[in-house]
Amino acid sequence: MTNYKIEINYDGTNFCGWQIQSHERTVQGEVQNSVFRIFHQQINLIGSGRTDAGVHAEAQVANFKLSGEVPTSKLKAAMNGTLPPDIRVLSVEMVPDSFHARFDAVKRLYHYTISRHQYAIGRRYMYFYPYPLTTDYMREAATYLIGQHDFKSFCQTKSEVNNHICTIEELNIVESNHIVRIEILANRFLHNMVRIIGGTLLDIGSQHDAPETMRDILQAKDRRAAGKTIPPHGLCLKKIYYEDK
Amino acid sequence: MTNYKIEINYDGTNFCGWQIQSHERTVQGEVQNSVFRIFHQQINLIGSGRTDAGVHAEAQVANFKLSGEVPTSKLKAAMNGTLPPDIRVLSVEMVPDSFHARFDAVKRLYHYTISRHQYAIGRRYMYFYPYPLTTDYMREAATYLIGQHDFKSFCQTKSEVNNHICTIEELNIVESNHIVRIEILANRFLHNMVRIIGGTLLDIGSQHDAPETMRDILQAKDRRAAGKTIPPHGLCLKKIYYEDK
Repeated sequence: MTNYKIEINYDGTNFCGWQIQSHERTVQGEVQNSVFRIFHQQINLIGSGRTDAGVHAEAQVANFKLSGEVPTSKLKAAMNGTLPPDIRVLSVEMVPDSFHARFDAVKRLYHYTISRHQYAIGRRYMYFYPYPLTTDYMREAATYLIGQHDFKSFCQTKSEVNNHICTIEELNIVESNHIVRIEILANRFLHNMVRIIGGTLLDIGSQHDAPETMRDILQAKDRRAAGKTIPPHGLCLKKIYYEDK
Repeated sequence: MTNYKIEINYDGTNFCGWQIQSHERTVQGEVQNSVFRIFHQQINLIGSGRTDAGVHAEAQVANFKLSGEVPTSKLKAAMNGTLPPDIRVLSVEMVPDSFHARFDAVKRLYHYTISRHQYAIGRRYMYFYPYPLTTDYMREAATYLIGQHDFKSFCQTKSEVNNHICTIEELNIVESNHIVRIEILANRFLHNMVRIIGGTLLDIGSQHDAPETMRDILQAKDRRAAGKTIPPHGLCLKKIYYEDK
């Protein structure tokens, strides 16, 4: 068996998320089908993590094992030949048998894009938020989230995860040309974490809440303390980091 | 009658172009319908120029006359409330009765976006061109097109226009992150002109033709001398310039 690491770019608009589900169109399902159509082998595609319905990925990382050895450039071309246009394989690499896309990932980078004007072009990739916004308040509030904390307030209540400790290494609010982008780099993310942090930052930025509110919300360890979960289409998984990269 | 100037952003993917046609979905048709639904007035929407099926516009400019006077912010909100999501009105302004979106436009800026990698995200807005490309050849070839020339070689043969004289003020090839963008600013454009210039530049850049080939093609005044018409989805009308702006 050969272990392949792939980078994939997908437009989440028409997917019920990453994880395979019967009767639903998912990224994992489409990629596994693609390999089955080429090699007639049922693979188990391991992603660096799941993305929810409607969330995009610029470079999701996954791995799978295949019997025999196929040149990586041929594998990439064959997969792109069978995959639908909303999933593209960017690269294929042979990796040691021990490589695991999820367990070996050390950091993840997500971007959430907010548009201050309503555009037709690119509307699949940004959340239109027309209300007044003071991004300096958002920036100051964001500082309370940097570091290792219990992020239970920013985790979907249905989540079955018990450990809510995450380390946010960077949380930047970048503004240019009517676009506000929230960039979050962390070791791990809880379910809906970026979208709940985004909703809370927008509340603070638009209602002129004191930025210290964010500290209270974090300390509450209660989902009800935080803002709403903003829509999935503004969210994009940008990059997965591994030890040796 | 009040004369309104509007800026509109549209995603051309699902339109049969700008110009109204019976039984086809067009931008002009949708905007005229939107105004009809709000005011029950049949307007004549004058665009700065037509765009073909599949071509996008970041800020197309148009004008129309309406009896009575409606506050511009209300008109914008009402139009965006009735228009489909792939057309958005960015601004509405009352202008002198004499303003004509087409006749008064003095310059037009188009961008053609070429992607060197095949992406799922943003695939509606860029043309995937995987072949080797020497952009320096494209840049040198482009210099032969700057200025006032007869661009008959770069005009669709079916076009009924007799005057092929245009003045290209700027023609830049911008490269960054696997994207090559052709930016053309001119007083006017012939039918398919940007897409034929783009196809010719790609030929020169990929086949290592001498950049001077472009001069010969221009001088031929024959469509057959130029390269192919590259696809519409990479093309975007970026900006229309008027005298007093």
